[in-house]
Amino acid sequence: MSVPDEAVTRRPAVRDAPFEDAVVVEEPIEIRLGGVALAVLMRTPGYDEDLVRGFALTEGIVLRPAEIDRVVDLGEGRFEIDLAEGVTVDPERFRRNLYATSSCGVCGKASIDAVRVAARRPPPGPSVSQVLLARCAEALAEHQPTFALTGGLHAAAAFDADGGLVAVREDVGRHNAVDKLVGHLAPSAWPVDPPVLVVSGRVSFEIVQKAAVAGIAVVAGVSAVSSLAIDLAAELGLSIAGFTRDGACTVYVDGGRITTP
Amino acid sequence: MSVPDEAVTRRPAVRDAPFEDAVVVEEPIEIRLGGVALAVLMRTPGYDEDLVRGFALTEGIVLRPAEIDRVVDLGEGRFEIDLAEGVTVDPERFRRNLYATSSCGVCGKASIDAVRVAARRPPPGPSVSQVLLARCAEALAEHQPTFALTGGLHAAAAFDADGGLVAVREDVGRHNAVDKLVGHLAPSAWPVDPPVLVVSGRVSFEIVQKAAVAGIAVVAGVSAVSSLAIDLAAELGLSIAGFTRDGACTVYVDGGRITTP
Repeated sequence: MSVPDEAVTRRPAVRDAPFEDAVVVEEPIEIRLGGVALAVLMRTPGYDEDLVRGFALTEGIVLRPAEIDRVVDLGEGRFEIDLAEGVTVDPERFRRNLYATSSCGVCGKASIDAVRVAARRPPPGPSVSQVLLARCAEALAEHQPTFALTGGLHAAAAFDADGGLVAVREDVGRHNAVDKLVGHLAPSAWPVDPPVLVVSGRVSFEIVQKAAVAGIAVVAGVSAVSSLAIDLAAELGLSIAGFTRDGACTVYVDGGRITTP
Repeated sequence: MSVPDEAVTRRPAVRDAPFEDAVVVEEPIEIRLGGVALAVLMRTPGYDEDLVRGFALTEGIVLRPAEIDRVVDLGEGRFEIDLAEGVTVDPERFRRNLYATSSCGVCGKASIDAVRVAARRPPPGPSVSQVLLARCAEALAEHQPTFALTGGLHAAAAFDADGGLVAVREDVGRHNAVDKLVGHLAPSAWPVDPPVLVVSGRVSFEIVQKAAVAGIAVVAGVSAVSSLAIDLAAELGLSIAGFTRDGACTVYVDGGRITTP
């Protein structure tokens, strides 16, 4: 995977002495539907159409990739979702369900009861070992080129049941990295085909929610897992692990899929 | 600083063998104004009134701490902002300006042009050295008790001009940690008194925005700084540094305050 040109910029900096540092780009993107602004996200430019498609899917704006005809770049960070013929989504209805949010979560749902979006219970399998998940996390660490340049990015990667890397996406936002990944995988299969998601950081409620909507069965994070992520994974029949490093992982919900030596 | 009881829970886990792991709690909080739900955030319970007060201030819902009479705990994660007598905020107007967001950012502003909320230009000073900021980051690392238990928390700390630790707050959400800190500091002085903010992770646009609204002049992160965080700090006259570790920091905007040996 290469680094999109627009994902990295340079700024003057001083540590021991003045130098020019590679800095990760953070810029707003406006997602529009039917001519109405639906959401503004802060994201790292690059793979924007994937981000918009993935966001629309994992937030339940559309139910299937085929409901999106195309994502149109309107310029200046504005993107329009063109729905397929015959598909209708009332953006006002969706907007009314969206409130403020902050701090990596929830995408501003109208009430606490509405935090869950359409999430599915994945089928049984595959069987993966703790060691395989740890190898996946190592592979992810070796495929974060923008992080390697800037030290400032989250990453999300999809793996097949044998631990083969399918795709990696990076972003300043943890959720955006997952949405870019889902948006990339979704057009060819829905639910998406790779059953394993590994994220470079923590696993929160919303990461599990997005994985569940996309049909991903196993979620592993390099860092900690929150209580609500564990509870949602258990409720939906997903498998979830944290601290995936040093050749092992901590399994919180095995879901009949994660095996311990 | 101690760990609030409600911030940590225990879940069964397996690594080499089954054990019971301490896990950080992630739960939604609903912020209400005038009986209307204004925002739902995912947060770590504890210091909730501070979080609500800090959020209301740094998101420009109110302009001064004195505009809030009190924050009322309605139970089940719902909190109401009671405005002081004579203060009016139309929650519908505020809600109409809020859209979806995700991935640590922007609190769902209505358009890209509206991303900035009321931020102030801090006065000149104080003068702090790179070494002092690195010592602050070390002090922060020693005062993250919930992280020490769970490995799953962000932290934000305020320091005085001599590097003295004033307060630390932790949360699953990066922004929430800052809002809890601002909400704690705000009632006694506005803009808040301590001039230095150190965060345990990355510095994004919205961290700088929240610091600027609170009147904090120097922002340092242990990890990377985004392009937009640098640009906003330069625009508003704040000082900003990243990679604050190993006895040094990388200064992106000195703002006349951060000195290099």
